[in-house]
Amino acid sequence: MRRALQLAATPGVPHGPNPRVGCVLLADDGTEVAEGFHRGAGTPHAEAAALAEAGESARGTTAVVTLEPCNHTGRTGPCAEALIAAGIRRVVHAASDQSSVATGGADRLRAAGIEVEGGLMADDARALNRAWTFAVEHGRPYVTWKFATTLDGRSAAADGTSRWVSSRAARLDTHRLRAECDTMLVGANTVVVDDPELTVRDEVDEPVARQPLRAVMGLRDLPADRRVLNDRAETVQLRTRDPREALELLHQRGRQHVFLEGGPTLAAAFLEAGLVDEVVCYVAPMLLGAGTSAVADLGITTIAEALRLHVDDVHVLQGHDGEDTNVRLTMRRH
Amino acid sequence: MRRALQLAATPGVPHGPNPRVGCVLLADDGTEVAEGFHRGAGTPHAEAAALAEAGESARGTTAVVTLEPCNHTGRTGPCAEALIAAGIRRVVHAASDQSSVATGGADRLRAAGIEVEGGLMADDARALNRAWTFAVEHGRPYVTWKFATTLDGRSAAADGTSRWVSSRAARLDTHRLRAECDTMLVGANTVVVDDPELTVRDEVDEPVARQPLRAVMGLRDLPADRRVLNDRAETVQLRTRDPREALELLHQRGRQHVFLEGGPTLAAAFLEAGLVDEVVCYVAPMLLGAGTSAVADLGITTIAEALRLHVDDVHVLQGHDGEDTNVRLTMRRH
Repeated sequence: MRRALQLAATPGVPHGPNPRVGCVLLADDGTEVAEGFHRGAGTPHAEAAALAEAGESARGTTAVVTLEPCNHTGRTGPCAEALIAAGIRRVVHAASDQSSVATGGADRLRAAGIEVEGGLMADDARALNRAWTFAVEHGRPYVTWKFATTLDGRSAAADGTSRWVSSRAARLDTHRLRAECDTMLVGANTVVVDDPELTVRDEVDEPVARQPLRAVMGLRDLPADRRVLNDRAETVQLRTRDPREALELLHQRGRQHVFLEGGPTLAAAFLEAGLVDEVVCYVAPMLLGAGTSAVADLGITTIAEALRLHVDDVHVLQGHDGEDTNVRLTMRRH
Repeated sequence: MRRALQLAATPGVPHGPNPRVGCVLLADDGTEVAEGFHRGAGTPHAEAAALAEAGESARGTTAVVTLEPCNHTGRTGPCAEALIAAGIRRVVHAASDQSSVATGGADRLRAAGIEVEGGLMADDARALNRAWTFAVEHGRPYVTWKFATTLDGRSAAADGTSRWVSSRAARLDTHRLRAECDTMLVGANTVVVDDPELTVRDEVDEPVARQPLRAVMGLRDLPADRRVLNDRAETVQLRTRDPREALELLHQRGRQHVFLEGGPTLAAAFLEAGLVDEVVCYVAPMLLGAGTSAVADLGITTIAEALRLHVDDVHVLQGHDGEDTNVRLTMRRH
């Protein structure tokens, strides 16, 4: 299973809409017969890849898979059927497949007389597909809210200037995180006022090949000259001011991981609705004393009601050549 | 010199008002004859301690000292004279003594025909007595401003409640830092409103033996029942609202390291006056959306004027038993 998880996590495998899956075929003596992993939507599933590599020698082996084999015909056939046809003797999988379309693989295999064992290293397998698992289980995308702040909680100075609160290293890091999501979400107001392009760029500031969807929510019309409307990536306008509705619309489009980069008001709306699952905060060693707060009023009046987060990770982004050192805190709701 | 620095940094040696100093006496072949360190005001200086240990065998040795020997009669006699009398052949010191009272030791030694070499590992020696060195060079105490903040820069909720923004680990850490200073400074307003005791307590919440001076600045009279007026430590009221004047009064009392724990207004006054040398910020993974800002208006209106700090250290204070993990940033002015 460890090897199967490694395969699933092969670098460069695009995330979403399909889960990352790895599969290893083992002979009775434990030697590896073949292996495979899923390379992204439209390509063979991990099981199919391993079966193709194994050919006839797949017969009688044990298939170790990071996710319960699917029971679903999409762009490729159901893996449960393929495993049965190949004469697999036993299937060991990690996470169960709870998605409405593909679930039932284990039952189908058992019905065909194949021994099935689930749950081995399931936590690792779920972590590998955190957003996919979340979206399947909650029926909405996983939401990461990212913001940059000074030590005194300001995202911009009194005159509205905010370039740059965060350091170059922090901005590069943000692009890396954006690339892990399938959707970037901002409010129409941010588009009108700040005109961000909302693309993922690499270290030499070039747009990367695969761009997340750019989603703009709000009722306001967008001026045609806004950079978010250029052809560098797909853009969708969500005609709502309700966070729940916006996520519903994105869910319908198969979106699983939203990177929320809106201003203080949009952030507050998502926080108040309980729709922020992860918070990434870049702290810059700077004081402003006045200016725009990183988050707008949350209706909290006393300390006991404070919105408390669990810190998952603290990362120091060392400054070079006179650049500030920034600190990234990654947190989730308690 | 490395050994002399180790001696100077002996744990438990009280800080200030005297510098921490270590001394090693070496024979011609480099073997150690004796060593000594200063244990705090009123006790023998490091050189005197080493000479006492060496007795007659001090004659003809090289004295390696972390600070230029003093040329001053205070509670103890001048070390330069003691070294001459003991027949020391050569003196190697790290930092020079720039203090108006004690300077001139090297000149005095040279005049007596002793070879003197200065500057060896001087940076390490200066770091050991950072506040003392600063106070001597700048004629005022070194100021560390400590504050605790939520991710969105709040030090208290809208109703004024602030217990506890920071975690227990962060509060313990604060006591450790307080103990390294010789003075804690707050505004009269904080005393009237929050009634802090301003003592250093240990891990079981007991006051430690040696307490820093409690200084309260401002024109307001203090109600007699305030805890800061109890007998757990000495307290002084500085009848001024001017940061520069407050530090001048503390300097006159021989204070070298002020731990500023005032509210947002006092902090802003010190920041605006350029009188904060070090900033210690505890970031709590919490959002309030409203409430008291960690720092009051600094007169900064645009991002280019932001008060930028250099990050010296980032320390994660891991939370246990459901406590928040806090992050401590230690910074200084650029």
